[in-house]
Amino acid sequence: MTTALPYDIQQLKHCADEIVLNVRELAAAGWTPATSSNFSRRIDQHHVAITVSGGDKGRLTGNDIMVVDLDGQPVATDRRPSAETLLHTQLYKRFGEIGCVLHTHSQNQTVASRLYAGAGHVRLEGYEMLKALSGNTTHETALELPVLPNSQDMHTLAAQVDALLDRQCMWGYLIDGHGLYAWGRDMAEARRHLEALDFLLGCELELRKLQR
Amino acid sequence: MTTALPYDIQQLKHCADEIVLNVRELAAAGWTPATSSNFSRRIDQHHVAITVSGGDKGRLTGNDIMVVDLDGQPVATDRRPSAETLLHTQLYKRFGEIGCVLHTHSQNQTVASRLYAGAGHVRLEGYEMLKALSGNTTHETALELPVLPNSQDMHTLAAQVDALLDRQCMWGYLIDGHGLYAWGRDMAEARRHLEALDFLLGCELELRKLQR
Amino acid sequence: MTTALPYDIQQLKHCADEIVLNVRELAAAGWTPATSSNFSRRIDQHHVAITVSGGDKGRLTGNDIMVVDLDGQPVATDRRPSAETLLHTQLYKRFGEIGCVLHTHSQNQTVASRLYAGAGHVRLEGYEMLKALSGNTTHETALELPVLPNSQDMHTLAAQVDALLDRQCMWGYLIDGHGLYAWGRDMAEARRHLEALDFLLGCELELRKLQR
Amino acid sequence: MTTALPYDIQQLKHCADEIVLNVRELAAAGWTPATSSNFSRRIDQHHVAITVSGGDKGRLTGNDIMVVDLDGQPVATDRRPSAETLLHTQLYKRFGEIGCVLHTHSQNQTVASRLYAGAGHVRLEGYEMLKALSGNTTHETALELPVLPNSQDMHTLAAQVDALLDRQCMWGYLIDGHGLYAWGRDMAEARRHLEALDFLLGCELELRKLQR
Repeated sequence: MTTALPYDIQQLKHCADEIVLNVRELAAAGWTPATSSNFSRRIDQHHVAITVSGGDKGRLTGNDIMVVDLDGQPVATDRRPSAETLLHTQLYKRFGEIGCVLHTHSQNQTVASRLYAGAGHVRLEGYEMLKALSGNTTHETALELPVLPNSQDMHTLAAQVDALLDRQCMWGYLIDGHGLYAWGRDMAEARRHLEALDFLLGCELELRKLQR
Repeated sequence: MTTALPYDIQQLKHCADEIVLNVRELAAAGWTPATSSNFSRRIDQHHVAITVSGGDKGRLTGNDIMVVDLDGQPVATDRRPSAETLLHTQLYKRFGEIGCVLHTHSQNQTVASRLYAGAGHVRLEGYEMLKALSGNTTHETALELPVLPNSQDMHTLAAQVDALLDRQCMWGYLIDGHGLYAWGRDMAEARRHLEALDFLLGCELELRKLQR
Repeated sequence: MTTALPYDIQQLKHCADEIVLNVRELAAAGWTPATSSNFSRRIDQHHVAITVSGGDKGRLTGNDIMVVDLDGQPVATDRRPSAETLLHTQLYKRFGEIGCVLHTHSQNQTVASRLYAGAGHVRLEGYEMLKALSGNTTHETALELPVLPNSQDMHTLAAQVDALLDRQCMWGYLIDGHGLYAWGRDMAEARRHLEALDFLLGCELELRKLQR
Repeated sequence: MTTALPYDIQQLKHCADEIVLNVRELAAAGWTPATSSNFSRRIDQHHVAITVSGGDKGRLTGNDIMVVDLDGQPVATDRRPSAETLLHTQLYKRFGEIGCVLHTHSQNQTVASRLYAGAGHVRLEGYEMLKALSGNTTHETALELPVLPNSQDMHTLAAQVDALLDRQCMWGYLIDGHGLYAWGRDMAEARRHLEALDFLLGCELELRKLQR
C-alpha cells in the first residue's frame, strides 16, 4: 500500500527528470567541479525538489533528488538537505512565480566573484546578451549583478539576499569566492539566465585582460 | 488532402536536417549560449528555411525551423520569425548564389566586437587560415572584418550591411556587443567561413594579450 | 586450473573498472595529454592496482592495469611498473586509510607548478571550494599546496614527500614542470580532491592575470 | 575482376581506419578548424595514405583518404592530392622509419607560430612532458621547436625543412601563421609527439602571460 504523499509523485518525477537532464549538461560543461553546486525545481505551492549534498553531478540520478518544504525542511524522507537549501527556498517562498533555482561554480563565476567582491557588484553593459534576461528588451541597458560576501551561516546569506530583493528586481547573484545563483519561472528560463550571466561574466573578464 | 505549398517540401526537409545537424554541433561548441543565435538555409529562389526565435539550440529539431520569403515574411505558417530574420533575407535577396547564413555568439566573437567597435573593423593578416575564405589563395593578404554598431532596429542594421556590401566583397561581419554573421554558397562553405573567422578572432585576441 | 593469487581477483576487477571509468573521463577533459599521467587504487592491505606506463589514457582498458605490492614491486605479472609507481605506494604504505592516488598533467597544474616552484607552494585562500578537501568545514581557511622540485630519481621525490607528510596533513602536491598528485580514502574522494585542487589552481592563475 | 594495385589493399584499409579514428578525435578537440589540417600514414616502402584536401575533419571517412607515392604523386586514383602533400612525403622519403605525419591548426599552434616567428624557434625547457618526445629521458633538457616562414610554394617550405633536418634530429616544426607538423614511427608515436608539442606550446603561452 502506497502511503499518501503531500505532493504529486508524477510532478516530482517530472521535476527530477528535468533536473537530471540539465545538471548532467552543466556538469559536462565543467560548471560543477568536485561535487559542488545544487539545483532545485518547484513541485507545487508548498514543495520543492532539490539535489542532495555532494556526489559527482555528472552522474546525478533521480535518487539524488529529495523533497523539501518552503522552509527547507525535508518532506517524507530521512535524508538531510544541503545547508544551502535555504538559499533556494527563500526564493520560492518570496516569489510564487519562481519555479527553478540553479547554483553552479564555473571558473568564470568564481573568479569574477573574487575580483568584484570589493565593489559589491559586476556592472554588465552594452551586450545584446542582456536581452536573455527576462524583462530586458534592448542591449541599451545595464545590469549590476550583486556580489555578496561569503558566509557559512545561511541565515546571514539569506538576509543579505532578502535585503537586495527589497530594492530591486533581479535574476541572479554571485557569492564571493563561491559561485552563481540564478533562477527563473521554469527550468528553461532559469537555465537561460544562468548561461547568459556566465557568458557575460566571461566576456567581462576577457575584456578586462585585453583593455588594460 | 495536402495543401499545395509554394516550396518543395523535400527541399525544406533537406535544409532543416542540415541546419539541425550543424546547429547542434555549434551549440556543443558553446557558440549559442542562452538560446541566442539564428541560422538559415535557402530552399529555392523565393524561400528560406530559418530557425524560430529562442529555444536551446542544443535541442533544436526540425519543428524549430520555419519558412520565410526573401522579405522575411512567414510563408504557410502562423509562426512569427525572429526580428533578426531581415539580416538573413537581405543577403539571400541581394546575392542569388548565397545559400546559407549562420549567426552565432561565441565569447571570442562578442569580446572582439566590443574591443574593435571603435575602429569599425578587425584587421586579420598573415594567417594561412585566411585561405579558408572563398576567393583567397594565399596567406599574403589582409581581411578587414567589419564591426557594426548594435541596434534593435533591424532596418538600420540592414542598411549598414548594404552600404558595406556596396563597397566590398565580404563573407561575414560582427555587430558590437553581439556576435558574428557569416555566409556562403552552401552550408559547408558558410560553416567553413564561420569557423575560420572565429578562429582568426581567437588568435587575434590571444596575440593582443601576449604582445603587449 | 587457476593459480591462487595473493589478492582477490574480484576486488582487482572492481578497482580496475573504477580506474578505467574515471581515467577516461579525465582523459576526455584533457588532463592526460600525450600518454602522460598514472592512476592507482588499493586492492587490500598489501596490494595496489595501478596503470602501466604509457598508452593513450582515453583508450585505457582493464588490460592496462597491473598489480604491485606496497614497495612498488610487480605481483603475479611479468609487466614492469612505471617509475613513478613509488610515489603511489609510499602513500598507501604510510597511511592505511588511503585508497586511491591520482596523478594528472593538466595545463593549469603544469603552469602553476612552474610559476610557484620558487615559492615552494601555492597559497589558496578564501574559496568555498576549499571545503571540497576533507577536513575543511569553512572557506575561512588557507591551504598551501606544496610544489616539489622535479627529479628523475623517484627516491629523491619520495623522500621530499615524506618530509612534507611529517609536518602536515595534506591531500595533494605539485611537482615542478610536471603535474599534480592527489589522493583520498576512495576513488570518489581522490577525484573530488583532484578536481578541487585543479579548479583552485585555475582560479589563481586567472586572478593573477586579472589583478596585476 | 579486381585490377592489381601496387600496394596491399588491406594495409591501406588499416591505415585509413587509423587515420579516421585519430583525426575525428583531433577534430573534436578543435585542432582542425574550417576544414584545415592534413594527415598521412605510410602503407609500405613506396606508398602513403593521405587525407584529400578540404572537408570537415569531424566527418572524415575512409573515402577521404587517397594514396600517393613518395614524390607526392597520386597512385591508382584520379583524385588530386593537397598542395601540402609534399611536406608529408619528404619525411617518408628521407627517413625509412617514419610511419605517420600529422599536421594540425590548433589556436595554441597558430598563436605560438606568430609570436616566435621572429626568433625562428620556441625554446621549451624544464618540462616533464619533454620526455614524451622519443629520445628524451629526462626533463633536464631543452627543445628548440623550429618556426619556418610561411610560403605558398611547397618546394620552398620543403627545402627549409630539409636544411633543418640536415642539422638536427627533430619530431616537429611550426610554420608561421599556420600550424604544426609532427611525426613518428607509427600513429601512436606521432600522436604523442603532436599532443606533447601542443601542450608545451600552451604552457609557454600561459606562462608568458603570467610572468610579465
